Amino acid sequence: MNWWIMDDNNIVVMKFGGTSVGTIEKINKVADRAIIANKEGKNVVITVSAMGDTTDDLIGLSAKISNNPSRREMDMLLSTGEQVSSSLLAMAIIEKGAKAVSLTGYQTGILTDDTFSEAKILDVGKKRIFKEFSKGNIVIVAGFQGVTSECDITTLGRGGSDTTAVALASALGAKYCEIFTDVEGVFTGDPNIITNARKINILSYDEMLEFASSGAKVLHLRAVEYAKNHEVIIHVRSSFNNNEGTWVMNTESVNDKMEQAVVSGVSYDTNQVKISVFGIPDVPGVAARLFSEFAEAHINVDMIVQNVSEKGKAAISLTIKNEDLKIAKEVIDRMKITLHIESVEVDTDIAKVSIVGAGMKSHPGVASKMFSCLGENNINIEMISTSPIIISCVLRKDRVKEAIRLLHDCFSLEKE
Amino acid sequence: MNWWIMDDNNIVVMKFGGTSVGTIEKINKVADRAIIANKEGKNVVITVSAMGDTTDDLIGLSAKISNNPSRREMDMLLSTGEQVSSSLLAMAIIEKGAKAVSLTGYQTGILTDDTFSEAKILDVGKKRIFKEFSKGNIVIVAGFQGVTSECDITTLGRGGSDTTAVALASALGAKYCEIFTDVEGVFTGDPNIITNARKINILSYDEMLEFASSGAKVLHLRAVEYAKNHEVIIHVRSSFNNNEGTWVMNTESVNDKMEQAVVSGVSYDTNQVKISVFGIPDVPGVAARLFSEFAEAHINVDMIVQNVSEKGKAAISLTIKNEDLKIAKEVIDRMKITLHIESVEVDTDIAKVSIVGAGMKSHPGVASKMFSCLGENNINIEMISTSPIIISCVLRKDRVKEAIRLLHDCFSLEKE
Repeated sequence: MNWWIMDDNNIVVMKFGGTSVGTIEKINKVADRAIIANKEGKNVVITVSAMGDTTDDLIGLSAKISNNPSRREMDMLLSTGEQVSSSLLAMAIIEKGAKAVSLTGYQTGILTDDTFSEAKILDVGKKRIFKEFSKGNIVIVAGFQGVTSECDITTLGRGGSDTTAVALASALGAKYCEIFTDVEGVFTGDPNIITNARKINILSYDEMLEFASSGAKVLHLRAVEYAKNHEVIIHVRSSFNNNEGTWVMNTESVNDKMEQAVVSGVSYDTNQVKISVFGIPDVPGVAARLFSEFAEAHINVDMIVQNVSEKGKAAISLTIKNEDLKIAKEVIDRMKITLHIESVEVDTDIAKVSIVGAGMKSHPGVASKMFSCLGENNINIEMISTSPIIISCVLRKDRVKEAIRLLHDCFSLEKE
Repeated sequence: MNWWIMDDNNIVVMKFGGTSVGTIEKINKVADRAIIANKEGKNVVITVSAMGDTTDDLIGLSAKISNNPSRREMDMLLSTGEQVSSSLLAMAIIEKGAKAVSLTGYQTGILTDDTFSEAKILDVGKKRIFKEFSKGNIVIVAGFQGVTSECDITTLGRGGSDTTAVALASALGAKYCEIFTDVEGVFTGDPNIITNARKINILSYDEMLEFASSGAKVLHLRAVEYAKNHEVIIHVRSSFNNNEGTWVMNTESVNDKMEQAVVSGVSYDTNQVKISVFGIPDVPGVAARLFSEFAEAHINVDMIVQNVSEKGKAAISLTIKNEDLKIAKEVIDRMKITLHIESVEVDTDIAKVSIVGAGMKSHPGVASKMFSCLGENNINIEMISTSPIIISCVLRKDRVKEAIRLLHDCFSLEKE
């Protein structure tokens, strides 16, 4: 056992995603794991996602009724998926002779705001869970869902079960939160593309945030933010074996024991589209107006580059998620006349590659090494954005795999 | 409009069964009906069952985990079915431009005892529904479910959505409760067997209770009991058209306007099995012990006949539901020695036919007419049970259709 969890308070929170509870056989395996932890004397809380494709199936049903269904009713609908998997898991544990009880978000006391479909957790009740512990129960909490102060059911957005698990770990004072998934942890690069990618042992919250936001799908972004804000240690590991995975934690506390990696890993995101807007008058406030309109339409703008062209006119390039393109176009069309936009170009053949590393901020030259590596291999960089611990480049989509393989080699990420 | 609903207080409760919300197309039709009532100025509450086979599918999932799953967890599981159909119906109404909100049993405030899978309603909250009315919402309440005082989810047993609807109508002071189903109402006999069966316009609660308990599947027994105890008028009608169906109500109030039918209809139940127990000592308390063991095993005994045979030994024949046979055999095996039972016979080839009529109690000779009708046609009667308004006979199962056609003719039920 690692030294940072030695003063374990005996409560363990485990989260299992949709693929880990996708069949009755898999649910039985989760039950076994819970019972083992319980027999070790731990108070076990398990958070589950909906089984396999349940959520997509429910969304499909609603899509037959409306293109833009009521968000409150969508949450009412989708929250049933986790209720089903929770109750089945409780049954499986009971069938194996242990004690268990499943709880909805409401029963647990997961209080959220009323932003249906993207609700934020305001408070997590402990009373019911401790009551169930005192009865000797393994407690299964339906992930992804909460309840408003008016008793309406909310959901926390895609991947919200991760957030449920972290919030529970924080509220219960669990020393860490185990996220069981279908991979062994966070890797230095996508193992499907980079054959010598290496599992990362420890990541800081900020590094994990950058990984999550730059395309790595292991952990939900908001769950990492929640963990960072509440200093919850996360252990991302495989649901198929007992191997140690990746610990996500405040690495300052382990800094004296280990050197921070300059570059921890590479990631990529092909679900991006570039929009270039030309001929914007280069006067203060114009860009601000464009982006505030985007914000109002709930469009997350990722990278932004502005150039001043001739005659005092500016050109802005930005990237957004593919699925936001339709609404983004509508916003720009609305703004065309008021902002005196001359022309707009949409490029869907782009992708983003990123290198992430907490040590980057104290090691100059990482960016130039990245650019050289790509340049020497004739990969054209179309946009660049940097923060203290991440550097991202926009490239042609068909060069992405090559680019991340090159970067992984260039920074020798296969070595510990 | 019928005179007994003229002082309508403007609240209408409508219940739609699983076949009426089995597809998105059907859900849209229910939405249309709700919107029409709403536009007529009514405050509309709709209770729905789960879509089509949802409940059976969920039971199938649980059966893969356990032969005897935790009842609490089963209720957690099954209650999702109605939550899904409720939220989809709300979406459909909203999509059509009206206002709607769906509520779970908990959100509605349907408080039950903690007899999981067969819970009894203790109280129905009105606050949330009236709040939603004040916002102009059509309110959809998930049927079949409630919540204990400890916030655990319960279900009301098969057909429980009928009970939900009646309980809501009672709590809200709705003048009547509309049960929409796939038939036009309650008939004098099963229209699939008796071609000239006639829709019954008005039935007393007691008659409806006897119909429900003797095999007619139009209304759930407990819903009728609840309606009787709280004097809720029920209107059973087709979800496919606007025809008037069958009114179930306190017929004493309409007695001055119409003569009670001597025999209102015939019904049958092929889901029965006869058990005969021979050689029981004919001393007080022995039968009581047998039946109290049955009661403890949650077996409902329907008909009972006891004969004293030679040497002071008794023989008891009784009928139970097919699905209870396995447990019943176990109970008898356990009792064999203590009760000195000599032998047991099980007969699964029997069925029950009944005639029901509130006027029966004041018209002697109905029973003899029934027995003659069957006897003249060589149909052997193996058991008989009577109450003031029902006479039931056990026959060979293969004679049932013939028997109910004969009885329907014999009592001229095709005539008003």
